[in-house]
Amino acid sequence: MLKKGFKIPEHNLRTSITKVEPDKIITRGYSQDDLIGNLSFSDMIFLLLKGELPNEKQSKIFSHVLVSFSDHGVTPPSTQATRIIASSGSPINNSVAGGLLSFGKNHAGAIEKSMKLFQDSIKSLNLENHKAEDENKLISKLAIKIVNNYSKQNFKIPGFGHRYHHKDPRAVKLLSLAINEGVIGPHTKLALVIESLLYEKKGIKMNVDGANAGILSDLGFDSRLGLGIFMISRVPGLVAHSYEEMTEEEEFRRFCDLEDITYEGQDFTSFD
Amino acid sequence: MLKKGFKIPEHNLRTSITKVEPDKIITRGYSQDDLIGNLSFSDMIFLLLKGELPNEKQSKIFSHVLVSFSDHGVTPPSTQATRIIASSGSPINNSVAGGLLSFGKNHAGAIEKSMKLFQDSIKSLNLENHKAEDENKLISKLAIKIVNNYSKQNFKIPGFGHRYHHKDPRAVKLLSLAINEGVIGPHTKLALVIESLLYEKKGIKMNVDGANAGILSDLGFDSRLGLGIFMISRVPGLVAHSYEEMTEEEEFRRFCDLEDITYEGQDFTSFD
Amino acid sequence: MLKKGFKIPEHNLRTSITKVEPDKIITRGYSQDDLIGNLSFSDMIFLLLKGELPNEKQSKIFSHVLVSFSDHGVTPPSTQATRIIASSGSPINNSVAGGLLSFGKNHAGAIEKSMKLFQDSIKSLNLENHKAEDENKLISKLAIKIVNNYSKQNFKIPGFGHRYHHKDPRAVKLLSLAINEGVIGPHTKLALVIESLLYEKKGIKMNVDGANAGILSDLGFDSRLGLGIFMISRVPGLVAHSYEEMTEEEEFRRFCDLEDITYEGQDFTSFD
Amino acid sequence: MLKKGFKIPEHNLRTSITKVEPDKIITRGYSQDDLIGNLSFSDMIFLLLKGELPNEKQSKIFSHVLVSFSDHGVTPPSTQATRIIASSGSPINNSVAGGLLSFGKNHAGAIEKSMKLFQDSIKSLNLENHKAEDENKLISKLAIKIVNNYSKQNFKIPGFGHRYHHKDPRAVKLLSLAINEGVIGPHTKLALVIESLLYEKKGIKMNVDGANAGILSDLGFDSRLGLGIFMISRVPGLVAHSYEEMTEEEEFRRFCDLEDITYEGQDFTSFD
Repeated sequence: MLKKGFKIPEHNLRTSITKVEPDKIITRGYSQDDLIGNLSFSDMIFLLLKGELPNEKQSKIFSHVLVSFSDHGVTPPSTQATRIIASSGSPINNSVAGGLLSFGKNHAGAIEKSMKLFQDSIKSLNLENHKAEDENKLISKLAIKIVNNYSKQNFKIPGFGHRYHHKDPRAVKLLSLAINEGVIGPHTKLALVIESLLYEKKGIKMNVDGANAGILSDLGFDSRLGLGIFMISRVPGLVAHSYEEMTEEEEFRRFCDLEDITYEGQDFTSFD
Repeated sequence: MLKKGFKIPEHNLRTSITKVEPDKIITRGYSQDDLIGNLSFSDMIFLLLKGELPNEKQSKIFSHVLVSFSDHGVTPPSTQATRIIASSGSPINNSVAGGLLSFGKNHAGAIEKSMKLFQDSIKSLNLENHKAEDENKLISKLAIKIVNNYSKQNFKIPGFGHRYHHKDPRAVKLLSLAINEGVIGPHTKLALVIESLLYEKKGIKMNVDGANAGILSDLGFDSRLGLGIFMISRVPGLVAHSYEEMTEEEEFRRFCDLEDITYEGQDFTSFD
Repeated sequence: MLKKGFKIPEHNLRTSITKVEPDKIITRGYSQDDLIGNLSFSDMIFLLLKGELPNEKQSKIFSHVLVSFSDHGVTPPSTQATRIIASSGSPINNSVAGGLLSFGKNHAGAIEKSMKLFQDSIKSLNLENHKAEDENKLISKLAIKIVNNYSKQNFKIPGFGHRYHHKDPRAVKLLSLAINEGVIGPHTKLALVIESLLYEKKGIKMNVDGANAGILSDLGFDSRLGLGIFMISRVPGLVAHSYEEMTEEEEFRRFCDLEDITYEGQDFTSFD
Repeated sequence: MLKKGFKIPEHNLRTSITKVEPDKIITRGYSQDDLIGNLSFSDMIFLLLKGELPNEKQSKIFSHVLVSFSDHGVTPPSTQATRIIASSGSPINNSVAGGLLSFGKNHAGAIEKSMKLFQDSIKSLNLENHKAEDENKLISKLAIKIVNNYSKQNFKIPGFGHRYHHKDPRAVKLLSLAINEGVIGPHTKLALVIESLLYEKKGIKMNVDGANAGILSDLGFDSRLGLGIFMISRVPGLVAHSYEEMTEEEEFRRFCDLEDITYEGQDFTSFD
């Protein structure tokens, strides 16, 4: 938060994440030597991002989210960019960074759009002003409105449908865990109703982005952290692919041969 | 592994990490819908990188390693690069990628150098050809040789000493956990003897890179995965800083003012 | 252009830019060994981006554009990111790439927005359906409308005003060259009228982005190439800064000291 | 240069490249409004990198160097990384940055290695202590020694040989221009003698890296600027490819299909 009213020198760096002192590192209020050994890695991530420790249920489901995004083989552009850069002999941080740069509006963009859709929609219901028993009805109505809106404009709802999977196995499992572990909140409910409507109408199921968008929203994560969480989860996959390329493949292998390339431009006989 | 003797089309992508089929994703032999819910995130990372599941002890200590690297505040160049890029309004993946690009020979390079030193040194002992009771003696001799070698050339041993900490609190905790949890192998032993020699001679202690280099080497990780594991652990910190910059700071804030800059070049009155 | 009606194998790479054959490289129809020696670097850039050679006037003004963007000292975030990454001992391509990643919505974004504004506005006039002598009048009217629109919504017009300069010396020079060299088209005219209105109302002048947006639009460049052209021009500056950091500064220098950092987070006495 | 003897605050940024004052931008001693309109883009690059203006001959040959590196079609990993990232809908700066990250030890690394070889070798001759008429003889002897050294160790000499071209047309043209324009210095001479020896022995010719390494060394550029100059020249090509991908191709096109991928890992029937 910017402290108004008095001037802070602008090159001064303010942070609420970690304080470093000689022989002492405090993260979100806890000494790191207390955190190491007492916290799982996914709880540490939760603490870093949210500023507070998860409770037991939050801890479990957040860990599932992180596992579920961690690799999708060589099919996505990010993995391909990572492997191409690795094949050129660049350091491993270059190839992983190149993978991250591929998260554009056509790739890995769905998670934040889906979180924003669920969060804006649920916020508009003002559930705190309604009786608990009406919640499901309100969410169902809302889901119908959303599906109709998107259908009318012929838009795809972010978080539903997958280029390879008819039934994304990760989404199926995540949703069943969320139900069994009792951590379904209004955002995931909304996602489930949208899915049932879409499935009936068009045979489309929720994908891993949609499932995680619901779960992360119920956990209280800002939609602007969606891609950040996706990256935290996917970087291990990118590291694995970069290492595999580096150790198992020939250097500078050709991802295409001259005969794979079609030149469709002009060809003049001479410059003059 | 390259299959010799028959030609594989070169644009064919081979991998042993993940197989994607419609409605089925197999990672390292396991169906992802089995992994989600059954594995912690750090175990999933272990599986992705090593190709096999950790046993209970490996699982615990590997998780400590990941927690220990996850943030060091705004002091490192990587965090500063991340925050500067975030302040320019670039997407969060850009700012995290920019942070990763800062892992150069002066930053985050120690982990791999330290792993390589420990692994090459221990390998040279051929411990498998010696009696178990001689192991400690052999390692001690080796440590003395290493410290003398580096001292003579006035080189710093990678993994020891820290610019901010006299006694890196993360290293202290990691080593005590490794001892208590009974996962000390020859590489960590070597690191500990080197530390005691350096401390006696120069008051220098092991840092977090040295401790993790020992532990990861005992876990059987190739030194070329050191930076990869560091990145997996640090990305959550970078995401937290990027998000903090994006939400708590003014846009495009000036990291320096004109008066912070000294121009030491020439100044001609005119072009001619 | 996608050839419809028959299926192209999807891993086939199509391009109209450069054809590579053994001992022969054809770019945009010309043999590269003809281009080398016959073309200036800025003409080569024009050819690569536009697919055709510039005429004499286009050649001159395009070269001015490229010179004008090439450095703005250490003040922009891109240069700072570049230097921080260089200080960590990363390779020069990492530090330049990190600089490019800083071109976000608050930095270097104005050029494309300004080009789009000028191009959409001029297109809406359908000048080809009007008499040439009416052009100036139509553009003036349009400028008034634009300025009023932005003023009403209290928005800044992209390409006008600068955080450091009252009168951006690059814009002044570019516009005077464009006028003297007789390459003023409708987009630059529009920019000039907007400037005179803004200056009268608020004392705001055109900046280098606005001037180049007008010139590049008159040259027929798609607004989606604005940032690309900016990068082509700025990379030399980033290379110079990276090299200066690498050769003139201490390694891993601290861009901030511990006392520059304010921790505003929590601080618990113990983990429990 | 570090000013010793008094303490400069470490967050102070020193530079000899560009001074920014309100309404005034001085680069390498010249006012930018003087440079715009008076300098070609390649001369501006020379000034930024070397700190001084080129003379007429230097200006011409440096411009040829920049033209010669500017594109090699979709064959290199850098172009492929750029296009894959562009296809994901990422901003153009991401795709160009991803291309730069591909300049690793197997790609674009030859230029600096070649410059270093030529510069170290010529420096070892101490030509300034010899009579001018002996220069050619000394260089020829040196070339023989270099070729023999590399042959004995079965190493490739950086700057010679090309994966696609037998006779790299760019090198041929650059060398003939350097000869005709009278800018052949000792480094290019050395390169030419090495080429004639290699061609006789193994049919190997100089490539574009070798030719430019000779020319840039004769121009007095530090070998650590080799990759920087290569990037300045290649970024226009990467921008052209990124733009072509963005405008001519389908979004998120698959660079590989599932059937292009071979999974060589394990496959267990169940998790347990």
